[in-house]
Amino acid sequence: MTDKTRSDEQHNAKMKKLQAAHDKILETKTIEKGLLVVHTGKGKGKTTAALGMVVRAIGHGKKAGVVQFVKGAMATGEKAVFDAFPDHVEFKPMGEGFTWNTQDRARDIAVAREAWEEVKRMIADPAYDMVLADELNIVLRYDYLPLDEVLEAVTARSPMKHVLITGRNAPEALIEAADLVTEMTLVKHPFRSGVKAQPGIEF
Amino acid sequence: MTDKTRSDEQHNAKMKKLQAAHDKILETKTIEKGLLVVHTGKGKGKTTAALGMVVRAIGHGKKAGVVQFVKGAMATGEKAVFDAFPDHVEFKPMGEGFTWNTQDRARDIAVAREAWEEVKRMIADPAYDMVLADELNIVLRYDYLPLDEVLEAVTARSPMKHVLITGRNAPEALIEAADLVTEMTLVKHPFRSGVKAQPGIEF
Repeated sequence: MTDKTRSDEQHNAKMKKLQAAHDKILETKTIEKGLLVVHTGKGKGKTTAALGMVVRAIGHGKKAGVVQFVKGAMATGEKAVFDAFPDHVEFKPMGEGFTWNTQDRARDIAVAREAWEEVKRMIADPAYDMVLADELNIVLRYDYLPLDEVLEAVTARSPMKHVLITGRNAPEALIEAADLVTEMTLVKHPFRSGVKAQPGIEF
Repeated sequence: MTDKTRSDEQHNAKMKKLQAAHDKILETKTIEKGLLVVHTGKGKGKTTAALGMVVRAIGHGKKAGVVQFVKGAMATGEKAVFDAFPDHVEFKPMGEGFTWNTQDRARDIAVAREAWEEVKRMIADPAYDMVLADELNIVLRYDYLPLDEVLEAVTARSPMKHVLITGRNAPEALIEAADLVTEMTLVKHPFRSGVKAQPGIEF
């Protein structure tokens, strides 16, 4: 039976049942804790959704720290909005363009280290409710930072602190350690039809 | 050969090659157009990433309209931020709680119609650069709105207008019509371990 053929009465009865089930599930959800959130996969939306969570946190009067390991023109839009809330968000674009723009591994490693020290500082500082390490997975993928050091810092965070990590190819051990993991899968991309990166969409 | 064992010279040569390929691809991307963007799948981040694109658009001085077909406590965080940019974003939470809260199909259809008329107005009005129809897919899934009417409105939009549609179970015809489709896949969710919805994460 599809939704189209179902009578209003049947539909309402089904909805009532759904709600009862939903309420019952909600009753069991009582824990509040800082989450380790990972956005990975080849699709779009990993950084955007993480920055969207930062916007939410700001809207709730919380303070967030954002460290971008790979700098591009990628967050100019968000930055203009964050600038309106200087007490609630600290934004650190640390990476020097995409790694393939520098072609200098020693320098990339130094930049990754510098960015990571910022993340560690924010994780350790009780003033920050949420810390976003944007594109950290890419840095881990190239072995620019030791995975063990990252795992140690994020698992040792204070109980109410949210830590968000983005980037394709999230290491298995990080997924193991995380509370919430979403994979963004590319279904269709306009790049394939010759459409260029546009403000509001890609950056 | 892994990144760990590769010499700096080899690494830099590889990066140089990657950049050349990247630049060559970028040269072919010359089209600017308004995109039809769909975020679907069972994972998290569909609405968050779409609202993040709205934040980007605002940051670029553009104007966005946001219509929420399913209202919850779900966007209180973003709303507080949007309120700081009243000239750049119009926010319309139209849905009356999750559909299973009302248990009244006739009323849900009327609410869906009202919300859709807002979306159509924003799509037709040149003042809006971006229109987000949040959770529209859910409404389509329940046949609360005719899919044909939605397809007609989004494909007839003006060439530079971005339209974003979110919600699980995006209809196949909508995916066909879209320029950019991302599926958010749930890998791991803290709900399973008894963690409740928290500000900055779920809303």
